[in-house]
Amino acid sequence: MTITPKRVYNFNPGPAALPLEVLQEAQAEMLDFKGTGMSVMEISHRSKEFEGVIHTAEADLRELLGIPGNYKVLFLQGGASLQFAMLPMNLRAAGASADYIVTGTWSNTAFKEAQKLGTTHAAVNTESEGFKSLPAKLDLDPKAAYLHFTSNETIHGVEFFKEPQPPADVPLVCDASSDFISHPIDVSKYALIYAGAQKNAGPAGLVIVIARDDMLERTPANLPVMLDYKALAASGSLHNTPPCYAIYIAGLVFKWAKQLGGLEAVSKRNHAKADLVYKTIDDSGGFYRGHATPEARSMMNIPFRLPAEDLEETFASESKKNDLIGLKGHRSVGGMRASLYNALDIKAAEALTSFMREFQQKHG
Amino acid sequence: MTITPKRVYNFNPGPAALPLEVLQEAQAEMLDFKGTGMSVMEISHRSKEFEGVIHTAEADLRELLGIPGNYKVLFLQGGASLQFAMLPMNLRAAGASADYIVTGTWSNTAFKEAQKLGTTHAAVNTESEGFKSLPAKLDLDPKAAYLHFTSNETIHGVEFFKEPQPPADVPLVCDASSDFISHPIDVSKYALIYAGAQKNAGPAGLVIVIARDDMLERTPANLPVMLDYKALAASGSLHNTPPCYAIYIAGLVFKWAKQLGGLEAVSKRNHAKADLVYKTIDDSGGFYRGHATPEARSMMNIPFRLPAEDLEETFASESKKNDLIGLKGHRSVGGMRASLYNALDIKAAEALTSFMREFQQKHG
Repeated sequence: MTITPKRVYNFNPGPAALPLEVLQEAQAEMLDFKGTGMSVMEISHRSKEFEGVIHTAEADLRELLGIPGNYKVLFLQGGASLQFAMLPMNLRAAGASADYIVTGTWSNTAFKEAQKLGTTHAAVNTESEGFKSLPAKLDLDPKAAYLHFTSNETIHGVEFFKEPQPPADVPLVCDASSDFISHPIDVSKYALIYAGAQKNAGPAGLVIVIARDDMLERTPANLPVMLDYKALAASGSLHNTPPCYAIYIAGLVFKWAKQLGGLEAVSKRNHAKADLVYKTIDDSGGFYRGHATPEARSMMNIPFRLPAEDLEETFASESKKNDLIGLKGHRSVGGMRASLYNALDIKAAEALTSFMREFQQKHG
Repeated sequence: MTITPKRVYNFNPGPAALPLEVLQEAQAEMLDFKGTGMSVMEISHRSKEFEGVIHTAEADLRELLGIPGNYKVLFLQGGASLQFAMLPMNLRAAGASADYIVTGTWSNTAFKEAQKLGTTHAAVNTESEGFKSLPAKLDLDPKAAYLHFTSNETIHGVEFFKEPQPPADVPLVCDASSDFISHPIDVSKYALIYAGAQKNAGPAGLVIVIARDDMLERTPANLPVMLDYKALAASGSLHNTPPCYAIYIAGLVFKWAKQLGGLEAVSKRNHAKADLVYKTIDDSGGFYRGHATPEARSMMNIPFRLPAEDLEETFASESKKNDLIGLKGHRSVGGMRASLYNALDIKAAEALTSFMREFQQKHG
């Protein structure tokens, strides 16, 4: 095959673009993974070859994020959505209450799932302001089982650049799905981090949980084993067959991010891309309007509106014709959304902003 | 690339061999799925392209198994192991009891998980006989919420060729993980079937649930949504991001099985392979000893012993040198195990039995 495959600028919110080098490596070894004569999908999860895959993936992720030794890394299934339930099942004792910072659709969904299972308190809820901003103040319970926040709201494009400060002894828990490994963080500030892989870290079907050892001691007796952090950690994510291929792809992504220079370099690249798009919005004289307030603007997801809905429809269809894919916004916010995850390089942001300027000239 | 990749005879118990044609198709469209300019891993699960993937996969599976219209097909995560918990959570009302037929490691594990969550009764347990046989008689509860059985025990190599008969009004539930789509079944005899994909149907990270509509009405209020059959069915397995790539590969496997001639043809091929291996065992004059009793012999997994453990070690290492992979048995049974899933063709069984005869000549 010498035909160069078509590739587009992929602004999908997740599942999302993967680095071309990762896909090429996966393609090259699809029929024969490192001389085994088998695909990664065909090897045993108990084989030394798969042990190599999962251990290397974990080691590279630990290096990227600087994960301290007293944290476990779990590779699980069910997405962040299953974590919404597993988290209170494991970390909130019967009768205890948990605090949630509600700043968008996803933290709100996490909050509602936790409510089904026990006492749950919203430390803030910015819905009445349209989920546009970071919370000004929090109503925190000093006895909460944990404080949960969503570091980046994929739909509303609101991102925390500094962790919220929980009361002393209240563990901080974060759904980092859509800004995971997009910039350096201090993991030691967190008790538990979880992230669906299908934005920055790999394909759908894998969720990564990073849990401080003392959190694993909270798991109550007799939880079903697939919902039991402690048991899943004790088995090294191999209680049952894990999502092997998704872990393999995530491992290739971690290796790629290291080769890019680690999370400092990744973050710099992400800022350059997002800055280009926000500048185009700000320079448009109101033709493009960002959803989030400037201080809350996400580096990952940029929802924006145009002056009228029919123009937004035209923008969606014309951008698609120009191989700029996935720009239609979520129905709850409307308009457009550009997702600029790690795998996109600066050329994608340049192509988008160039299209945005031309579109404004034509229709503005 | 014109280098022919190395391929081995893959007898892994799961994750297991996939059809070469499936891997080749996945490889060819890794960078550009049907002109989208994206990998299947990079397209939105809400896109019309992915709708095509999941709807075609479901339609082909319905055709293969003859699934009646009053059954839903779900593509979920967490493996059969999470189903061990979801099943009683959804189908067993508070206070009710469920019956389990325990014929091996997997049905025993399902039984124990169900016990954590409520009243669970073993209709039979063949452990004292070494999990070698099908149950002669069952102690059935006419008021059971359901009767559960495991149609093929992957570790012990015991397979049901006729469904157990539950009392009137007791729904029959089956863990079909390791003989799923290996032969035709009458789905209308079942209330619910679940199967981890990583044996006959695709890669790890996907579990398929086939549920009769009335079973979905049993789901209690306020279950976490990712554990709620009714909600997952209502969203067409798209409540959250599903394991898209695993569904895509499973879809290619279903298409391949149809092209092979459907499940009658698949079953004939599986019998031919298993018959070769069992004949070699039976003709060995006791050198090879099958684990299961003849009437319970699985067409999928054939555990067998040799006269001594050191010979078994030699068999394991020499077979591997001959590119016969995955033949070491599970530690709970010991010895060897040949898994002969759908993707293996007769040449694999011929290569194995030829090796077995030579090995016996040399060491017998």
